[in-house]
Amino acid sequence: MSFHIVPIFAAMLKNDLILKAARGEKTERTPVWLMRQAGRILPEYRAVRNSLSGFKELVETPALAAEVTIQPVDILGVDAAIIFSDILVIPEAMGLTYEMVEKKGPHFPKTVEKAADIDKLKVADPSDLSYVYEAIKITKKELDSRVPLIGFAGAPWTIFSYMIEGGGSKTFSKARKLLYTDPEMADRLLDMITKSTIKYLKSQIRAGADMLQIFDSWAGVLPPEHYSRFSLKYIAKICDAITEVPITVFAKGAWWALPEMADLNCRTVGLDWNMNPKEARKILPNKTLQGNLDPCALYADNESIKQETKKMLDAFGDHPHIANLGHGVYPDTDPNKVKFFIESVKELSTH
Amino acid sequence: MSFHIVPIFAAMLKNDLILKAARGEKTERTPVWLMRQAGRILPEYRAVRNSLSGFKELVETPALAAEVTIQPVDILGVDAAIIFSDILVIPEAMGLTYEMVEKKGPHFPKTVEKAADIDKLKVADPSDLSYVYEAIKITKKELDSRVPLIGFAGAPWTIFSYMIEGGGSKTFSKARKLLYTDPEMADRLLDMITKSTIKYLKSQIRAGADMLQIFDSWAGVLPPEHYSRFSLKYIAKICDAITEVPITVFAKGAWWALPEMADLNCRTVGLDWNMNPKEARKILPNKTLQGNLDPCALYADNESIKQETKKMLDAFGDHPHIANLGHGVYPDTDPNKVKFFIESVKELSTH
Repeated sequence: MSFHIVPIFAAMLKNDLILKAARGEKTERTPVWLMRQAGRILPEYRAVRNSLSGFKELVETPALAAEVTIQPVDILGVDAAIIFSDILVIPEAMGLTYEMVEKKGPHFPKTVEKAADIDKLKVADPSDLSYVYEAIKITKKELDSRVPLIGFAGAPWTIFSYMIEGGGSKTFSKARKLLYTDPEMADRLLDMITKSTIKYLKSQIRAGADMLQIFDSWAGVLPPEHYSRFSLKYIAKICDAITEVPITVFAKGAWWALPEMADLNCRTVGLDWNMNPKEARKILPNKTLQGNLDPCALYADNESIKQETKKMLDAFGDHPHIANLGHGVYPDTDPNKVKFFIESVKELSTH
Repeated sequence: MSFHIVPIFAAMLKNDLILKAARGEKTERTPVWLMRQAGRILPEYRAVRNSLSGFKELVETPALAAEVTIQPVDILGVDAAIIFSDILVIPEAMGLTYEMVEKKGPHFPKTVEKAADIDKLKVADPSDLSYVYEAIKITKKELDSRVPLIGFAGAPWTIFSYMIEGGGSKTFSKARKLLYTDPEMADRLLDMITKSTIKYLKSQIRAGADMLQIFDSWAGVLPPEHYSRFSLKYIAKICDAITEVPITVFAKGAWWALPEMADLNCRTVGLDWNMNPKEARKILPNKTLQGNLDPCALYADNESIKQETKKMLDAFGDHPHIANLGHGVYPDTDPNKVKFFIESVKELSTH
C-alpha cells in the first residue's frame, strides 16, 4: 500500500476554523464538533450499523466507516469529521484481539497477565490497520475539503488498561496494581503501545488526517505521581514524534495534570465538564482549549441548552477555543438537541 | 424502642486518637482506619458472610453486624470501628427496596422515574432502621470502649443517584439528566433523603456512634455548579443539623469543591488519592484531613507499602490527620498487607 494524499490539502479546506483555532489564530466564530462519533446518535448511523453483523465489521469496512464518518457533517453541521474507528484497533494490531459486546462494551478474551504475555505481542505494523487508512482516504475524497478530518488514538495508559483488565472496570485495580508491583513490566508494555501508536498516527496523517486527538479516557483513576510517570510521559513521546499536524490531548479526569500539560508538544488540551475553563485559561495560556459542556445538558429543553452553551462560551472568553462536550455524546441524546447545540455555538460565538 | 446510651461514653474511650485528631488536637501518633468495612477482606468476615443467605441478612442481623464490625479492631488493629451496614438502607426505609447482587453490586427493582414515584415514598422513620441502632448498641458494648465507633450515611446526591439509576452506572446520566430537566423534582427527592438522613444519623448517635462519616461516592460525576447546588447544599444541611459528634465528609472525585467545603459544619474532610494533601492543607487550614493512600498501593511488597505510607504521612505533615486509604479497600487485598499498612502508620507517625 502507498500513501499519495499529503497534508498540503489542509490548506485548501473550505472550512478550516478548527485548524485555525488549534493554531491559536482568531476565528470569525468558535468551531464546534462532538466527541465520540456524534454520528452514533443518528438514525442514519443505526441503519448502517444494523445492516452489519457488529461494530467491528463497521470499523473494518472502509466505505461504510467513511459513510458514517461523514453523516454528522451532512446532518448536524459540525466543523470537523472524526474518522469512525476504535482506539482498540491498536492492541488488536499488537496481537490482542478484542470483541465489541453490544450494550456492554469491549471485551478481550485474552489479557496481559504476566511478562511472557508481552513477549507474544509485537509493535503494530502500520500495514496491519490498512482498513483505517483506506477509510480516511475515502472520507477525505467524499468530504471534498468541506471540513477537516480528525484522526485519533487512545493514550498508551488507556490502551494498557484495556489490555490488562480485558474490558472496562470500576476501579481499574488490576492495571493500576501492576504499576506498583512490576513497574518495569508496565513500562515495557507502555513503550510497545507508544511505538505502535506513533506509527499508526503517522500513517493516519499520510492517509489524509488533518489533525489528531489522543483520548486518555482512564486518566482519572491514577494518583498524580503515577499519571506523570506512566501516562503523560508516553503521551509526550507521541506529541514529540508527531510534527506534521496539530494534536489535541484529552485526559478525562486528570485535572491535576493541566499544569504539566503546558509542556506537551500538543496544540490543544481538552477539558471535561468538571474542569473550570477560566482556571484552565490561566494554567494553559499558550494552548487552545477544547470542551466542555456536560453531555447531560443536551437532555434539557432548547432554552436551557442555549443558556448552558452561552455560559460555556463566556467561560472560555477570547481564549482560542474549540467548542465540544466535556466527553462523548450519550447514545440516547436526541439528534435535534445536538443540532441545536451546534447551531447555538455558531450563533452565539459569531463576532 | 428507647436510647439509653449517650455520647458521654466517648470521654471514657481507651483509644480516642481519632476523636482528638477530628477535633484538631495534637495526638501522640496519627490514628488510622480503613474505609468501606476493612473487615470484608478478612477470612473471618467471609466465614460469617457465607453462613448467611446474603449481604442484606448480615446488615439486618445486629449481633452478626456487630461481630464483623469488631473484627478489624481485633485482627487489624485499627483505631476506630465503622458500623457494618450499607448506605442503601435509607432509600429502603423511604420505600424503595434494594437487592445486593453478589459480585455485581446493588440493584433496585423499582426506581424513581417520575414525580408520582416520589409521592409513594416517605421521609424515613428512625424506627424503620432499628436493626442498625441495635447493631451499634451491641458493638459499643462489645468494644468495651477500646476504640470509637463510626456511624455513617450516604450523601443525598449519592443516594438520589441510586434511586434514579437503580444501581451503579458508568455515567449516571439518568440521575444527572433530571438536574437539567426537572430540578424541582430533584430538589424534592433530595430534600426527603436529607430529612431521612438527619433522623437516621441522630438515631445512630443516640445508639452510641462516636463520630459520623458522610460518603458522597458519586460526587465526581457532577459539574461544579451542580455539585454546589444539588449535593453540597444538602450535605451542609446535614452538617448543620448534627451538633452532637464530629462529622467527616468524603466527596470522592470532587476536588473542585474543597474550597467550598471549608464552610461546612464538619470537622474532617476526606481526600481521595487524586487529591494533593499539601494543597488541601492550604485550602482547608481549619479542617482535619483524612486519607489518602491509593488502595492499589496495598498490592505492593512491604517495602513499597512503607515507602508510600511515609510519603503520604509526610505530605500531610503536622496538619491534623486521620490516616486512611483514598477510597475503600479493594476486596482482593491481602489482610497482611492491610495490617502492615496500619502498623506502618503507627510506627512512622509516632513522635
